[in-house]
Amino acid sequence: MAAKDQVKALLFDVFGTVVDWRQSVIRELSAFGNARGLSVDWARFADEWRGLYQPAMEEVRAGRRAWTILDDLHRESLITLLERHGVKGLAAHEVEHLNRIWHRLDPWPDSVEGLIRLKRRYIIGTLSNGNTGLLVRMAKRALLPWDVILGAEAARAYKPMPECYQRNAALLNLEPQEVMLVAAHNDDLAAAQSVGYRTAFVLRPVEYGPGQTKDVAATRDWDVITDSFTGVADAMGCPRR
Amino acid sequence: MAAKDQVKALLFDVFGTVVDWRQSVIRELSAFGNARGLSVDWARFADEWRGLYQPAMEEVRAGRRAWTILDDLHRESLITLLERHGVKGLAAHEVEHLNRIWHRLDPWPDSVEGLIRLKRRYIIGTLSNGNTGLLVRMAKRALLPWDVILGAEAARAYKPMPECYQRNAALLNLEPQEVMLVAAHNDDLAAAQSVGYRTAFVLRPVEYGPGQTKDVAATRDWDVITDSFTGVADAMGCPRR
Repeated sequence: MAAKDQVKALLFDVFGTVVDWRQSVIRELSAFGNARGLSVDWARFADEWRGLYQPAMEEVRAGRRAWTILDDLHRESLITLLERHGVKGLAAHEVEHLNRIWHRLDPWPDSVEGLIRLKRRYIIGTLSNGNTGLLVRMAKRALLPWDVILGAEAARAYKPMPECYQRNAALLNLEPQEVMLVAAHNDDLAAAQSVGYRTAFVLRPVEYGPGQTKDVAATRDWDVITDSFTGVADAMGCPRR
Repeated sequence: MAAKDQVKALLFDVFGTVVDWRQSVIRELSAFGNARGLSVDWARFADEWRGLYQPAMEEVRAGRRAWTILDDLHRESLITLLERHGVKGLAAHEVEHLNRIWHRLDPWPDSVEGLIRLKRRYIIGTLSNGNTGLLVRMAKRALLPWDVILGAEAARAYKPMPECYQRNAALLNLEPQEVMLVAAHNDDLAAAQSVGYRTAFVLRPVEYGPGQTKDVAATRDWDVITDSFTGVADAMGCPRR
């Protein structure tokens, strides 16, 4: 029996794997800036916003800070960056509107079709550092047909802490080897594999923009290696119909 | 503005409100018993199983017992009842199959249609004492189109503890008054209302069988009072199409 034959649920990294966060954030920030006549390098702003993501979570992971959801970490980073880029005088509801860009990210072109096929045979869900409310709103807007919203908030532990993978498998009454993580990030897959998860790498070669240097190939012999969610569906025996 | 105009999410009690637990449990127990030539009053067995539900949860609510998911409470009650009814010698996998009857409950005839209509306009989710894995499997089998699986396990507190309602609203980034609980049980609605939730009562007059005496009418002036999920959809402004 192949390792993947035991799989009962596929859980997905979301930012970068399911949705194209970078182009979505740049698009919304640019629209906001154009409407207000602001002159800001929004691509750089988006990259800096994402750049503050790991250090913000690390405060929580390291125990220097009490549990804090990603919406709140994102908002703090946003306020820092608005000041750095000289954007002043926004109303609270405007800051909140910008922070919720992360609730309105667009999927990659193959995401929805692949998920629909996989859902027929497996439990499909998120396993994201995004908070539950963010992931629910994103799913409704982007028509992502999740069976369950899981991740850091359900586990009260950010990836790549082992507790995040372990607790989310337990929430499904599953052993780690019955769960496959689908991700575009080798480090996420390595952490999941170390607690017993099965693994699927999906190449997203422009997640970080045209000059991407990280995660441009699988760095290990993951159980599935492909470049689309329809490729995951093919590999997991979920036919087109 | 009517109280219900603020609502962003509808969360649903599940056992009795969304699904007909009693007939589903009796049907599966009877099929199991007939296949093995067992002579047991399965309707009484089902009612006794449900009768052990509140006392089992109360041990956890009262803090006399550490957090325990409903599947585990159900299994303990099942083993007690198998012994009481003289059913002996079942294999572990047979006990587990019976315990998972609660993952395979059938919806009331109006449930799926009402949920599909409500989902177009609102976040819809569970707010059940059932554990996450149970609710996910029930939803896939019964085609319940939830946006999110919430409830006691997400909050680590059983209803009607106020923390259960409060923590689940917070998981959606919502204030309690932005959430409506839909339930066939007046006591569940009263607990939800006391923390600020909006409320919808759905009459399920045979949940407990033909001689039902409890919850045969709304006992307060809930925000919505109806006898079906399509009635909830009508009341909440979700048209047929």
